[in-house]
Amino acid sequence: MGIITEDFLLRTKTARALYHEAAEGLPIIDYHCHIDPAQIARDEHFENITRVWLGGDHYKCRLIRSDGVGEDEVTGSASDREKFDRFSAVIPKCVGNPMYHWTHLELKRYFGFDGALSPDTADEVWDLTKNVLADLGVNRIITSSNVKMIGTTDDPADSLEWHKQISSSGVCAAKVCPSFRPDKAVNVDKPGFKEYILRLSEASGIAISSPDDVKEALKNRLDLFCSLGCRASDHGLDRMVCVKASESEIKEAFDRAMAGEKPDAKAADAYKTEILLFLGREYAKRGVVMQLHYGARRNVNSNMFSRLGPDTGFDCIAVSDNSEALCLFLDALESSGELPRTVVYSLNPADNAMIDSVIGCFQGNDVPGKIQHGSAWWFSDTKAGMTSQIKSLAELSILSNFIGMLTDSRSFLSYTRHEYFRRIFCDILGGWVEDGEYPADMPTLKALVRGVCFENAERYFNI
Amino acid sequence: MGIITEDFLLRTKTARALYHEAAEGLPIIDYHCHIDPAQIARDEHFENITRVWLGGDHYKCRLIRSDGVGEDEVTGSASDREKFDRFSAVIPKCVGNPMYHWTHLELKRYFGFDGALSPDTADEVWDLTKNVLADLGVNRIITSSNVKMIGTTDDPADSLEWHKQISSSGVCAAKVCPSFRPDKAVNVDKPGFKEYILRLSEASGIAISSPDDVKEALKNRLDLFCSLGCRASDHGLDRMVCVKASESEIKEAFDRAMAGEKPDAKAADAYKTEILLFLGREYAKRGVVMQLHYGARRNVNSNMFSRLGPDTGFDCIAVSDNSEALCLFLDALESSGELPRTVVYSLNPADNAMIDSVIGCFQGNDVPGKIQHGSAWWFSDTKAGMTSQIKSLAELSILSNFIGMLTDSRSFLSYTRHEYFRRIFCDILGGWVEDGEYPADMPTLKALVRGVCFENAERYFNI
Amino acid sequence: MGIITEDFLLRTKTARALYHEAAEGLPIIDYHCHIDPAQIARDEHFENITRVWLGGDHYKCRLIRSDGVGEDEVTGSASDREKFDRFSAVIPKCVGNPMYHWTHLELKRYFGFDGALSPDTADEVWDLTKNVLADLGVNRIITSSNVKMIGTTDDPADSLEWHKQISSSGVCAAKVCPSFRPDKAVNVDKPGFKEYILRLSEASGIAISSPDDVKEALKNRLDLFCSLGCRASDHGLDRMVCVKASESEIKEAFDRAMAGEKPDAKAADAYKTEILLFLGREYAKRGVVMQLHYGARRNVNSNMFSRLGPDTGFDCIAVSDNSEALCLFLDALESSGELPRTVVYSLNPADNAMIDSVIGCFQGNDVPGKIQHGSAWWFSDTKAGMTSQIKSLAELSILSNFIGMLTDSRSFLSYTRHEYFRRIFCDILGGWVEDGEYPADMPTLKALVRGVCFENAERYFNI
Repeated sequence: MGIITEDFLLRTKTARALYHEAAEGLPIIDYHCHIDPAQIARDEHFENITRVWLGGDHYKCRLIRSDGVGEDEVTGSASDREKFDRFSAVIPKCVGNPMYHWTHLELKRYFGFDGALSPDTADEVWDLTKNVLADLGVNRIITSSNVKMIGTTDDPADSLEWHKQISSSGVCAAKVCPSFRPDKAVNVDKPGFKEYILRLSEASGIAISSPDDVKEALKNRLDLFCSLGCRASDHGLDRMVCVKASESEIKEAFDRAMAGEKPDAKAADAYKTEILLFLGREYAKRGVVMQLHYGARRNVNSNMFSRLGPDTGFDCIAVSDNSEALCLFLDALESSGELPRTVVYSLNPADNAMIDSVIGCFQGNDVPGKIQHGSAWWFSDTKAGMTSQIKSLAELSILSNFIGMLTDSRSFLSYTRHEYFRRIFCDILGGWVEDGEYPADMPTLKALVRGVCFENAERYFNI
Repeated sequence: MGIITEDFLLRTKTARALYHEAAEGLPIIDYHCHIDPAQIARDEHFENITRVWLGGDHYKCRLIRSDGVGEDEVTGSASDREKFDRFSAVIPKCVGNPMYHWTHLELKRYFGFDGALSPDTADEVWDLTKNVLADLGVNRIITSSNVKMIGTTDDPADSLEWHKQISSSGVCAAKVCPSFRPDKAVNVDKPGFKEYILRLSEASGIAISSPDDVKEALKNRLDLFCSLGCRASDHGLDRMVCVKASESEIKEAFDRAMAGEKPDAKAADAYKTEILLFLGREYAKRGVVMQLHYGARRNVNSNMFSRLGPDTGFDCIAVSDNSEALCLFLDALESSGELPRTVVYSLNPADNAMIDSVIGCFQGNDVPGKIQHGSAWWFSDTKAGMTSQIKSLAELSILSNFIGMLTDSRSFLSYTRHEYFRRIFCDILGGWVEDGEYPADMPTLKALVRGVCFENAERYFNI
Repeated sequence: MGIITEDFLLRTKTARALYHEAAEGLPIIDYHCHIDPAQIARDEHFENITRVWLGGDHYKCRLIRSDGVGEDEVTGSASDREKFDRFSAVIPKCVGNPMYHWTHLELKRYFGFDGALSPDTADEVWDLTKNVLADLGVNRIITSSNVKMIGTTDDPADSLEWHKQISSSGVCAAKVCPSFRPDKAVNVDKPGFKEYILRLSEASGIAISSPDDVKEALKNRLDLFCSLGCRASDHGLDRMVCVKASESEIKEAFDRAMAGEKPDAKAADAYKTEILLFLGREYAKRGVVMQLHYGARRNVNSNMFSRLGPDTGFDCIAVSDNSEALCLFLDALESSGELPRTVVYSLNPADNAMIDSVIGCFQGNDVPGKIQHGSAWWFSDTKAGMTSQIKSLAELSILSNFIGMLTDSRSFLSYTRHEYFRRIFCDILGGWVEDGEYPADMPTLKALVRGVCFENAERYFNI
């Protein structure tokens, strides 16, 4: 009854050859994720499958809620086994949902379970996973997944103590690199800005009373990040911004926010632009990749936000026009020769063609595919979403230079999503070949597969 | 030569099994349509196929006009037979258009015609349909289509006399329920508002001189609707709104409109928001479903509007950003625990992923799939449009909880569109199974088919 | 190893029959392109394949840059052979990119090359094409491509000397018609407006000191264009506009621009609207088709713009809401009965359904499909982009009335893109037939193919 067969998702002979002969054995570079380095440093073990699956995985929580299950059995006081039972009851209903595939990939690869999760098999799966987990810590998962590099997501005010510990202890077979995510220093118009600036000041040892001081403090922290192996930054933006204003307007936006007031909208955007452009230039100097994630509307359910806080499954896609700001932003850096390697991700899949047309305007000769359209993100990180991103990129750019998959995940079992991506990717290539759209030139195709599934990211992030 | 074979649109063995063994025999719940209850009450018969097809079906009129046919032969003085001949000449040109499939499904199911409509077969079809129609009234169509429930669309000022008569006469085998569509009381910025408010006042017996009086009058009418079996409301919005303003601003928008003036745009949106939120709370109290249809631009051809009036085939898709207003609106109701069961439909297919991401933020535990993304609507109600809505919903939500198809039609022959949907739906499922994306677990799959094609709507609308 | 087989892209028996028996032998009407009439008049020959491929083809330049190649080897001082080598190295990486197919179609049809371009075959291709080009001038390409009509793109201030010369010399087997492209007289808010107005004044012999004078001068030039066979105009718009303002505001926008100042944004839009509506009425009088291309953001990389100028591969898709302005604009002309035949093209593929819904509101009885949704344009002119435009058009309009393909190209080797379109078109039809969605009625289907691939354009443009 299990769907995770040897040739899962591989519909053509060419696809099967490409996957098994080129993709399958490659190491994983998971250059952007949200796993907690403390869990690696402590080599965390999980008591049961609920802890590893539902603890913080808001994808799964949303799905259970969509089945009419009360919060008590999702994140509330119900027992781990009860929560697992709710999830087991939802899964068979999820025809066409990536969760169906992810769940069974994880059960197969890490626990050897070959069946289909449902109320009928819940007992078996609960016991099986409990037994295996007793012996399966975070670092064994990483090793057995053949992960070569992990890019975590870290706050500039973070001490990076866990990264230092991972590095000195040798506990993890993969290179674990911090990524610089300074959203809280950028979002001058969001609650908590002032408090954050105080934290940043403390972390950097720099007194902050102006936007210039913010820059100085961020630069200071970026240097620390780089000294610990940082290869990439990450920016989560509601929408792209590129608004110019006078120094005094920008200063006023900062001052107002520090006074606990709401700054003027245009001035706030100008402040954000100023900081982002500054950081872009600093990344360029240091060879740090700039990741731009835009198009999320966050915490839209105020009841649940006040109950559970952020990142709990109450975010959605924001539709907005980002093409102008994206162009202006990239041009502002490019015009002075200071555009870093940049990866653009939109949460709105309707933006794919636009992004692919924009990146073609800002390529450069330091690396093939200097400006990248990032792999399908979050709500689009589905079979159709990935297929659409890959095909759009192929049509408007050079697919061979794509840096490929990242999990963006909070869960250690998510490395199987690289397998999911690789199978889908090989299936697309195989389809083209067998439809006569590309020659059956296996050496070239295998090189392409190795590039997209591993080598391009290795080169792009200097690993 | 006919295309409506037993396995029409069913490309895999699994699809055929699911359709013939689970979907085919199910009753129909047509929870939202625009048929006229008077025609049911009077058991209307049609003189010929032109009367039943072209009388009011603006989809067909648009298509004929697109072939360069003058208005005289579309809605004008030409004879019914001449109009039918124009339509018969257009149909063979409509490769890839749903009208090609709808037309032949209707000819096959209600008239037993097995061929392809064209100028060559026009005589045969004209005579055949004329003969059958002599004996085929509206209620025989409903009975033979196995329709269990019909949700009409009614104005709050309507007396619902026809509904009372249908109910007391037992003329119709289906439950015929009124739906509450208060657009004219919401659209404070559109011509005719003042006249409508007078009608509403008269119908409710409530003097109306303020927004609060409008609410009172609507509540009064909603109670009448509910006493006659109303399960759902429906709102046709150019775009989603959620604008807050002071009571006095809202009152001023109302006063201006009643004085025949155009209210301020922001105040008008605030008035709309106020009435819509009020109604949402009233629906929640009564278990009435709130349907939100947005994204149409109406009557864009002023010549034809002055000649033929509204709903005659001169509307189009409006592209606009509705994600923020949609979230704010749902949150405004959810934050006080007064969000009713809600179905969101956008006319712009590029909004699918956004809507599917939003509904996942507002689910609740009174019913699985409390907040629904409605089936592909109007211009998107095509094979590709339905496929895209179904696949997007499957990826971002739980497909098994979907309430499925509705005709939204003004024609009694449209029940075959449920067959069209069911075939497409089973074909999608069959494709997934035969591609190895879901196990060939037929009992689970058949339960899913029965749910989406009938049982979920039955439960969701308390039928 | 070559992919351009007899049945390239034709996946079904029906598709193969339609292509080989109906589409393949048809003449080409290339009603909109950017080739230089001077090259036809002089019967230009090309020294080598680099000159014909990379000279001005910004699609190819973008692709090479995306591979990390420095500008020197794209448009700079490198030798033609070096540039060709860079391109040959990029091509094998372009799986899924239309350039892969275009390149091999061109090599096969014009040079008889049957293999795959790569560094391994670069020598062979270089020599082969050099030999063939010695004898293959522009007019032999046109003749051998069976081109019946070419619509160039010309400035109203152009003398059309080359067109006169082509016409009187009989050098070209195709009818070469000028198209009227008055963007520079419309773009009152762009640099160079004043200088252009002086040129226009000189060309027309009309002193220009007001918007009315601009109209008079344009009318004068349009008459010249029509006397030389002009069938179509073309408008490149960042976004659709339809803004009304007083005559004095419009005059002020003009005066400011002539004084070298930036006009007010709303007044500038009103000026553009005024000129565009005027031209629309003049086109209607003369039977000239109005082409509206919107949705490009141009010259977004300022470094490269200052180095290479416009149309060099630094443009992208602009996402914006055009539905309202498009409707208002068409209605403004239709309401006075002066709407010309119009073709609407958006660069944003997410607009397909919107455009198809809009054109259905403004059809007329002078020709079937009077208002057209133009073939997939520029970044969307890919297999998937064309498929998406064709299927959306089929669903929301009458596919049989579509005027089909145009190259929009600057290269004389691009006529093979008509073959590309025809193969894709026949493949779509064949798929529908073999999936049982349309009867295997070959005479009707072949008539449809002849219409879309040739006859409809012939009728629509009065050729």
